[in-house]
Amino acid sequence: MDYAPPLADNRFLLLEVLDAPGQLRPAAGHEHTDPALFEQVLEEAARFVKGAVAPLRAAGDQPGCRFEGGSVTTPPGFRDAYQAFCKAGWPALACAPEDGGQGLPWVLEGVLYEWLSAANHGWTMAPGLLHGAYECLRHHGSEELKAAWLPQVASGEWLATMCLTEPHAGSDLGLARTRATPQADGSLRVSGTKIFISGGEHDLTENIVHLVLARLPDAPPGPKGLSLLLVPKRLADGTRNTVSCERIEEKMGLHGSPTCVMRFDEATGWLVGQPHRGLAAMFVMMNAARLHVALQGIGLLDAALQLARAYAAERRQMRVPGPRDASQAADLIEGHPAVRRILETQQCWVDAGRVLAYQTGIELDLARSHPDADRREAAQQWCGLLTPVLKSAFTEQGFHGASDCLQVFGGHGYVREWGVEQIVRDARVAMIYEGTNEIQAIDLLVRKVLPDGGAALDAVLARLQDDGGGDPRLLPAIERLQGATRGVADAARQDAQAAYWVAGDYLRAVALVLAGWAWSRIARHPGATGPRWQAPADAFWRWVWPELDMRLAMLQAPTRP
Amino acid sequence: MDYAPPLADNRFLLLEVLDAPGQLRPAAGHEHTDPALFEQVLEEAARFVKGAVAPLRAAGDQPGCRFEGGSVTTPPGFRDAYQAFCKAGWPALACAPEDGGQGLPWVLEGVLYEWLSAANHGWTMAPGLLHGAYECLRHHGSEELKAAWLPQVASGEWLATMCLTEPHAGSDLGLARTRATPQADGSLRVSGTKIFISGGEHDLTENIVHLVLARLPDAPPGPKGLSLLLVPKRLADGTRNTVSCERIEEKMGLHGSPTCVMRFDEATGWLVGQPHRGLAAMFVMMNAARLHVALQGIGLLDAALQLARAYAAERRQMRVPGPRDASQAADLIEGHPAVRRILETQQCWVDAGRVLAYQTGIELDLARSHPDADRREAAQQWCGLLTPVLKSAFTEQGFHGASDCLQVFGGHGYVREWGVEQIVRDARVAMIYEGTNEIQAIDLLVRKVLPDGGAALDAVLARLQDDGGGDPRLLPAIERLQGATRGVADAARQDAQAAYWVAGDYLRAVALVLAGWAWSRIARHPGATGPRWQAPADAFWRWVWPELDMRLAMLQAPTRP
Repeated sequence: MDYAPPLADNRFLLLEVLDAPGQLRPAAGHEHTDPALFEQVLEEAARFVKGAVAPLRAAGDQPGCRFEGGSVTTPPGFRDAYQAFCKAGWPALACAPEDGGQGLPWVLEGVLYEWLSAANHGWTMAPGLLHGAYECLRHHGSEELKAAWLPQVASGEWLATMCLTEPHAGSDLGLARTRATPQADGSLRVSGTKIFISGGEHDLTENIVHLVLARLPDAPPGPKGLSLLLVPKRLADGTRNTVSCERIEEKMGLHGSPTCVMRFDEATGWLVGQPHRGLAAMFVMMNAARLHVALQGIGLLDAALQLARAYAAERRQMRVPGPRDASQAADLIEGHPAVRRILETQQCWVDAGRVLAYQTGIELDLARSHPDADRREAAQQWCGLLTPVLKSAFTEQGFHGASDCLQVFGGHGYVREWGVEQIVRDARVAMIYEGTNEIQAIDLLVRKVLPDGGAALDAVLARLQDDGGGDPRLLPAIERLQGATRGVADAARQDAQAAYWVAGDYLRAVALVLAGWAWSRIARHPGATGPRWQAPADAFWRWVWPELDMRLAMLQAPTRP
Repeated sequence: MDYAPPLADNRFLLLEVLDAPGQLRPAAGHEHTDPALFEQVLEEAARFVKGAVAPLRAAGDQPGCRFEGGSVTTPPGFRDAYQAFCKAGWPALACAPEDGGQGLPWVLEGVLYEWLSAANHGWTMAPGLLHGAYECLRHHGSEELKAAWLPQVASGEWLATMCLTEPHAGSDLGLARTRATPQADGSLRVSGTKIFISGGEHDLTENIVHLVLARLPDAPPGPKGLSLLLVPKRLADGTRNTVSCERIEEKMGLHGSPTCVMRFDEATGWLVGQPHRGLAAMFVMMNAARLHVALQGIGLLDAALQLARAYAAERRQMRVPGPRDASQAADLIEGHPAVRRILETQQCWVDAGRVLAYQTGIELDLARSHPDADRREAAQQWCGLLTPVLKSAFTEQGFHGASDCLQVFGGHGYVREWGVEQIVRDARVAMIYEGTNEIQAIDLLVRKVLPDGGAALDAVLARLQDDGGGDPRLLPAIERLQGATRGVADAARQDAQAAYWVAGDYLRAVALVLAGWAWSRIARHPGATGPRWQAPADAFWRWVWPELDMRLAMLQAPTRP
């Protein structure tokens, strides 16, 4: 069974619950945004995802990508689907009109990528890397560099990579050793080995634009000595650059996306942005990239849920107390409480995730182009704080929730042909890449909340509170979270490691408060009635919300005994 | 890195903390059990596991088992290791001396299988199925049947299977349709298709003894119409029976164990036990089989933990607050709180799991052969209640904890060569087979606790309490658990579905109380000092124990709104 975007659900949350067009209309460039435009884009996107990308999921797992003689062959159908994707203009959906894009709000791209990831995570990795590269180049590339490379990246004609990790430098990019040596003509020669490069080599496009972190000869040690370079697979005249793929990794999943070991042997490249400011140049796209990953988690969870729901609606095993169909030897398992609880709980995470990720997507645009500086600042705070929370919480739910959905199938869930075990394997990587979930927690608590004494977080929490009509459970939870923040701050002053021990609990507590806001926001919409919205709402408050007390209890004693 | 049994840890818990030999000595047949015997068996077992089985783990995943023309080829080395296993007498370790066994306590077999599963889950599936078959045959087979088949099953010369599941009958075996038709010579003809048959076909032994659930012509519908039959791959004269393997499943993991679709075409078999009493004949081995699965979870978690610990002791990334080694560019990640928390928390689950599973293994023997009927009854209660709890809690921890260990590796954890992702994939199946974890929860709460008003559970909890010297947190927790039991019982009287909704929470609450007892038991041993035992003890009370409050809160409102 292929994934089908649940258009009505996404539409309801994006247009009705959040009124995305109304929120975006004050922003420069989005004055003419209206629901009809959203509807049209969503409908076309849903059609493309279902028709062109979803049917290729199984092939993405087996045979997956193959490596031979330095070349990577992507699974059957991948290239055609990618060509169709470009031809329809999807890569440039949110790119600036001056770069050949359609200038649509980021949140529409977000929904598109949620669906694409749900339908086929492996395939989606390829275009998924375009957007960060586009932002980097657009904001930091020289005019010359942009003229030569930006239009093809915006349109997706050439795919892009981010070459950051090295064997000994993963989470700690400051340890990277790849060197870049300036040449007389203004170019640089780049040498080194990069690993875990998604899409480092493939047959989807004629050229590949690598963005590479490397050190100039005079670079200081550590992260402040990293520069960003553009190093293409083929130079402007079509000749091969000295960039090669040594092998692709054998992985737990995501076999549709080649994870490459890339070797740069005095390869020709050009500086993007200022020397030694490579990490800063990448920060421009970090929130958007992490939000993309959160949406992968949400999408993959929804994909697993669709499969489990369909199976539970056909599989009969045993009786449960209650009314039964005497014409059958057993009840449908969708009526078993253990199964219902799994399905309704995962649905409540998917729904809350959409509300939070879409609102954050809206804030990304407002942070950039709202006319009011205070509103831009508020949007920036929202994105900075929510992004690590959503990346961590929803990639974790993507994996664990998909595993719960697998459980609905019993033994069949463990077998490949049903598809759900692939989703579990594919989803696992999202807890690691784009900053491990442990790093997201440290980013939230140690880098963002504690340094300003919780002021930015208070501002975001005040927005949740002021949102009005909230569930009565929400306000006391916000106050308790604020108390916990003060407690952790006090403990951190006594013991510098304290915050590191409980950063994960802190992130979970924030995630639960945010999800509580999301459900309170959904519930106050008059359309959120009937079992579709009531069952996951009940599941949220009954089965998910109680974790908040547990996390707050753990936060009370952050210092090691 | 291959798995190495942590002999000193197992020894300490089994001999020092639990004094297994002393507990077993009153039981018939174990009068001469002493620590020296235990030490000797454990040492030999550890040597065999490490030398013969652990090195084959990667081959068990790739190439795994292959199917061609009705035959299954097991991975390179599997057959030799199995032959060596039999030659050394390991299959018959706990079999009765009159059947050619060594008559050693069950708990020693339990430790052996914990290590084997940790070292190589796929390989271990083959001998793992012998023990249930042996018990079934021994207790229910006719003298004739036993004479012909029992010695070879006891010695492992012929491997065995349990053929229960059919395509439409998984958790609900009562729906099974395989037919058995009596013949004039006392044999029966068996026809039907069975799926998910571990080791249904392979090249490890010359013959395979299938135990098959089927219906006699006059069978009543449902589970009370199932009979158990012995259907061998080869008949006594060596000719092939009409039993064939149609295919093997492609699975998420456990590729070292062939999961077969088996076809019986008027195959010759013989009744084991009474007609229509097949399920009862299998119950004789259910507790032992489920405890084996719990030990798989514990073993696989320990295997993942060994890998993660070794990686964390060599990998340097970033700085954490605190003393640092200035000669290095970054700190070892084993010093990072996020990593330490993962390692220490998983260790606390492994240790608690061992105490609980070993004590339950001891009770299995006491239930059978203690001279005092009251003690036998108490042991039976213990096994009946703890087995579903341990099966569910420790297979869940085996999977989720192994996934946490994978996280320690960052991106490397997602890559095959490091081995940890195989453990995550292999461990997933244990949450499903031998009764899904949802079924374990229903078994505990609906079938065992509620029917006698919690009396048997109270008896077990009283034993935990009386054990003395306990942690002060334990007694109030036991009382709250008893209160929750009364609450759920009241709710279940109002709403027959209520207990089904919260059965999983109830099982978790019991598991946490049991783990609290285990840690309180370890802590009172004077040898449980130093970081080896203090760090996981702290982790347990800080990071694991708070879940109990959450589960008890969920149990307060078991009726759906």
